[in-house]
Amino acid sequence: MLLHTIYLVAIVAEAMSGAIMGMRRGMDLFGICVIGTITALGGGSVRDVLLGNYPLGWIAHPEYLLFTVGAAIVTAMVARSLHHLRKVFLLVDGLGLVAFSVIGCDIARANGMAPAIVVLAGMITGVFGGLLRDVLCNQIPLVLQRELYATVALFTGALYVGLLWCGVDAAAASLGAIGAGLTFRLLALRFNWKLPRFNTAGIRGFE
Amino acid sequence: MLLHTIYLVAIVAEAMSGAIMGMRRGMDLFGICVIGTITALGGGSVRDVLLGNYPLGWIAHPEYLLFTVGAAIVTAMVARSLHHLRKVFLLVDGLGLVAFSVIGCDIARANGMAPAIVVLAGMITGVFGGLLRDVLCNQIPLVLQRELYATVALFTGALYVGLLWCGVDAAAASLGAIGAGLTFRLLALRFNWKLPRFNTAGIRGFE
Amino acid sequence: MLLHTIYLVAIVAEAMSGAIMGMRRGMDLFGICVIGTITALGGGSVRDVLLGNYPLGWIAHPEYLLFTVGAAIVTAMVARSLHHLRKVFLLVDGLGLVAFSVIGCDIARANGMAPAIVVLAGMITGVFGGLLRDVLCNQIPLVLQRELYATVALFTGALYVGLLWCGVDAAAASLGAIGAGLTFRLLALRFNWKLPRFNTAGIRGFE
Repeated sequence: MLLHTIYLVAIVAEAMSGAIMGMRRGMDLFGICVIGTITALGGGSVRDVLLGNYPLGWIAHPEYLLFTVGAAIVTAMVARSLHHLRKVFLLVDGLGLVAFSVIGCDIARANGMAPAIVVLAGMITGVFGGLLRDVLCNQIPLVLQRELYATVALFTGALYVGLLWCGVDAAAASLGAIGAGLTFRLLALRFNWKLPRFNTAGIRGFE
Repeated sequence: MLLHTIYLVAIVAEAMSGAIMGMRRGMDLFGICVIGTITALGGGSVRDVLLGNYPLGWIAHPEYLLFTVGAAIVTAMVARSLHHLRKVFLLVDGLGLVAFSVIGCDIARANGMAPAIVVLAGMITGVFGGLLRDVLCNQIPLVLQRELYATVALFTGALYVGLLWCGVDAAAASLGAIGAGLTFRLLALRFNWKLPRFNTAGIRGFE
Repeated sequence: MLLHTIYLVAIVAEAMSGAIMGMRRGMDLFGICVIGTITALGGGSVRDVLLGNYPLGWIAHPEYLLFTVGAAIVTAMVARSLHHLRKVFLLVDGLGLVAFSVIGCDIARANGMAPAIVVLAGMITGVFGGLLRDVLCNQIPLVLQRELYATVALFTGALYVGLLWCGVDAAAASLGAIGAGLTFRLLALRFNWKLPRFNTAGIRGFE
């Protein structure tokens, strides 16, 4: 029940992030609604298509589309004052990321997947919405370039699967993984943690 | 039968639009055939994968590929004189858009989907081919940026579902929705109707 | 058994090509692992999703992910000295292309597809990993623009299907198609064979 509420908050936050990027690319109202919806529901859709888990969440529950389209339209209306809310937005976005990860793990477990695929399904749920958003906005996906975003999703999923494996019950494992994952994400933002990049000067030969 | 003929005309028109954009991006003959085929059949494929509706249309009917590849090759041959046909092309492209929408709705209905998903499946069929074309050509999808293109697909699908709901028989509802949708599209082109965009100056904080 | 070994070599080669392109785009370590994995396994995943062939290969065999992630990490470590290996890399990449094509054909055959779809499934397996890599790296897919790469995949698949149709046994047909396809690819690289492109000056009217 709590997880479902967090899920709805998360798709609203993701739809807002998609809508904002769409506005900055000059999309019209329809485009903003589409990019918001794809950002919010794209990660779960990619996961379900890869797992063969039909029907997809938003097809079984078309009412989710009201949340994403509504969030995109409201964002378009009030975007001028949203920068006051930047910190709230990052908090909600981080909460969405870790909630998506736990939900993605649950769905893969319900489909009888191996633990490695369960963790991966969580990560795909968490990051592929933003990845599709960036592809449609014609930029290299941010998640591939910077910040400990996908790493947080992997950490959250692995912790959740580990807690379940240790016999912790599902509700406690969910909350523990979400709490620890969100803390990790906020610390990564606060201290600007990054993964290493590589000097590419030596690899010109492969163009 | 009529709808099937319109469908074949539509995939030819879509394949031509993909081939033309591929040529303008310097693609070779193979690339032109691929981009034409993806533009023509990509919307229906995305719809079927999201709905879990197997086998996909072009897999059950590989002969559709002859139409799309043939259209792409002919387009490459005669592109120099195609600008004389620009108005015919826009008419056929609009016909394809509304026919794809009605066909997409039919397939979702046959799969027992809720009315909202039926209309959405029509829109996905109509616009995702062009969206994939633009992603592969490395530009922000036109459909997200301008013109009442997706709106026409939504209108056509909603009208079709509404007419069926009122008890109109399927053939009459198809023709009514196609006629009204095509009229809407041509009026939108003629009078340059657009959806609103938004001033993005206030949202710098979310980069 | 030989085909399986070639497959593992091929996914390592493809993961390396993805990792190298990711490094050149400034991706971090996580991004390099993701782009390497998508390049290696994306073609087969697209094929399986289009055919409805579940479970996907890497979901049934998560250990494949160790190969692709390992290859990406090793590539990131040693990239400075990789240009000495450029010719080896092109050879292994070509071997991967033709092996992917034959494997893709086999899977479509096992799913009872028509011969045209079998050949197409081989081509999709061979080229869609690189196509997804290029989309995520925000460039027009190389395979649509130059070199006889997809043509080699089509040729290999068609030859394989043709040999089977003539009654040649599967092992001999695999090896024959792989040998001929690889020879074709190496000749195309050596002599810089290309497909025709088209003068696009006459098609400005369709913007």
